[in-house]
Amino acid sequence: MTNSSAGSAAVPSTPLLKDELDIVIPTIRNLDFLEMWRPFFQPYHLIIVQDGDPNKTINVPEGFDYELYNRNDINRILGPKANCISFKDSACRCFGYMVSKKKYIYTIDDDCFVAKDPSGKDINALKQHIENLLTPSTPHFFNTLYDPYREGADFVRGYPFSLREGTSTAVSHGLWLNIPDYDAPTQLVKPLERNQRYVDAVLTIPKGTLFPMCGMNLAFNRELIGPAMYFGLMGDGQPIGRYDDMWAGWCVKVICDHLGLGVKTGLPYIWHSKASNPFVNLKKEYKGIFWQEEIIPFFQSAVISKDSTTVQKCYIELSKQVREKLGKIDPYFNKLADGMVTWIEAWDELNPPKLVVEVTNGPAKA
Amino acid sequence: MTNSSAGSAAVPSTPLLKDELDIVIPTIRNLDFLEMWRPFFQPYHLIIVQDGDPNKTINVPEGFDYELYNRNDINRILGPKANCISFKDSACRCFGYMVSKKKYIYTIDDDCFVAKDPSGKDINALKQHIENLLTPSTPHFFNTLYDPYREGADFVRGYPFSLREGTSTAVSHGLWLNIPDYDAPTQLVKPLERNQRYVDAVLTIPKGTLFPMCGMNLAFNRELIGPAMYFGLMGDGQPIGRYDDMWAGWCVKVICDHLGLGVKTGLPYIWHSKASNPFVNLKKEYKGIFWQEEIIPFFQSAVISKDSTTVQKCYIELSKQVREKLGKIDPYFNKLADGMVTWIEAWDELNPPKLVVEVTNGPAKA
Repeated sequence: MTNSSAGSAAVPSTPLLKDELDIVIPTIRNLDFLEMWRPFFQPYHLIIVQDGDPNKTINVPEGFDYELYNRNDINRILGPKANCISFKDSACRCFGYMVSKKKYIYTIDDDCFVAKDPSGKDINALKQHIENLLTPSTPHFFNTLYDPYREGADFVRGYPFSLREGTSTAVSHGLWLNIPDYDAPTQLVKPLERNQRYVDAVLTIPKGTLFPMCGMNLAFNRELIGPAMYFGLMGDGQPIGRYDDMWAGWCVKVICDHLGLGVKTGLPYIWHSKASNPFVNLKKEYKGIFWQEEIIPFFQSAVISKDSTTVQKCYIELSKQVREKLGKIDPYFNKLADGMVTWIEAWDELNPPKLVVEVTNGPAKA
Repeated sequence: MTNSSAGSAAVPSTPLLKDELDIVIPTIRNLDFLEMWRPFFQPYHLIIVQDGDPNKTINVPEGFDYELYNRNDINRILGPKANCISFKDSACRCFGYMVSKKKYIYTIDDDCFVAKDPSGKDINALKQHIENLLTPSTPHFFNTLYDPYREGADFVRGYPFSLREGTSTAVSHGLWLNIPDYDAPTQLVKPLERNQRYVDAVLTIPKGTLFPMCGMNLAFNRELIGPAMYFGLMGDGQPIGRYDDMWAGWCVKVICDHLGLGVKTGLPYIWHSKASNPFVNLKKEYKGIFWQEEIIPFFQSAVISKDSTTVQKCYIELSKQVREKLGKIDPYFNKLADGMVTWIEAWDELNPPKLVVEVTNGPAKA
């Protein structure tokens, strides 16, 4: 391979983690949005999770290496355990995390485009996520100059030296320019608000602090935290939607805190093109809006026992606590707790411990 | 008063909190640095705490309204209690917090100049601090778009509605362009590193998370947290220096968390002009560098009892814990615990509860 010249469609000559990262995209439409991402995504393998009607054909632009799963594939691969994967909701994306055999995952929505930094340059979001994941996190003490591992920055005076090695990073949560990730009530109240502020920072979310994890522009280390990245039961047949990523975020953060792993947020930005319909969103969200008032204190006070030393064990323990403490809010949470258990069973089935499988299960290959 | 025209020395026609904020400056030299701050500081009252030789005359540029205290004044006003105020260390600045009668304090070092934002405009640091202090904080849940009260921003999807009122803000911690606030070892290793990254964000440091509070560019609500802003025993006759602001920051954060108050960090930036001598700094810091490895876990696990409902009560309780748990590190911490008690006694003497005194004690008036 020769070094690419500086052109608009120049593919980086040595893409980071080329063979260790899958890009997971949930979709119901043709993936024309990939054209804009071509310079950055083309070297990587894509896992496309087709939601909705499995008979519909999804067009993927030429030249991308991908596998695609529709509902029939999910049902065939998981059998009865397929009921833990949501239908008619982008929560179905977590099936892609499960069938991946790579160490890292980047997931992005198909209404997200390449953003520009303040100098006007296209932002390679994936590259920034990889940098975030490959450098440590600092969850135990706040560094006022933000990411101390970044060039030109360091730990400030008063930062304990024993904490400067940091911890492994499990999650990199990216942000959005243009349409901010607002809930339906905020969308309704501020229909014209756009995020135009480029904040040039990456920071670790401190231990013990929860955050609203958005699945639109998210990367994680599958080996470290994969089994906790379950996006729950949403959409078709469920009383709630648009809380898939939030649910995953709460579980992930509690487990990362327990296992001493780091979660970062900030750069990179993507350009979020289109606000979803706030009326439709309100219908999906309204139960979540009051349920979260009880769910968040539950997660804030959740304690995982010392015996739970793997993500799977932590997640199963959490599922029991969900059943016990959230089941009384609504029977939905018992169903969700069941889903959490099924998810782990399915995960372990597709990802047998210590056995490295190189063959993918995908029915469709580019 | 007429609206000022847009000139370089234009004084804002209605400076925020003009009669409710004092600017506290510790110094050993002439205050020429104030010339650059004139457009922003001139409407406010200054409290200058002269460190070192009290016979030296400190020049203050014409036109500033100020009171100045030297060591003789401190000794006269506090009597035997003056031993809680450090000498030959900028920790002496906290005497200014004590004699102020205003609701808000801004403190700045005399080697800090006006920084420019990315558009090249002079940053009115004081104005940004005031905005930070007058808007709520969000210590109980992380908002991924940073300060939700800022124009163009809000709470993101998944942020509990019950937490959106936020909490009162007690502290606004500003940052520094050019010379970063590094400890001596980092200064020695990276003598040429400069902070050139302007991060356009203000954020709340989450509850339960400690941070390294720097006193170089710091504002706070004196009514809410003043009695905890003790900068400890540093400098002359003490085994340690350059931990004055760190000590205050640890105490302040633990007490803010207990009382449900917010601490913000981020904007505004000042331009920090000159790195202090790393060899001199190392001599001052070296004990702190290993002591902090025990001090920080102490503060991370410190619990204040429910009975402590005022800052004073919290602070006295903390002083007892310092004596009990840190006294074994070094006898210095017993002396420091004594200093903490004396500080509160002196604070209450100069700030009798409920009695509003309009007369200042300052010997020198501009």
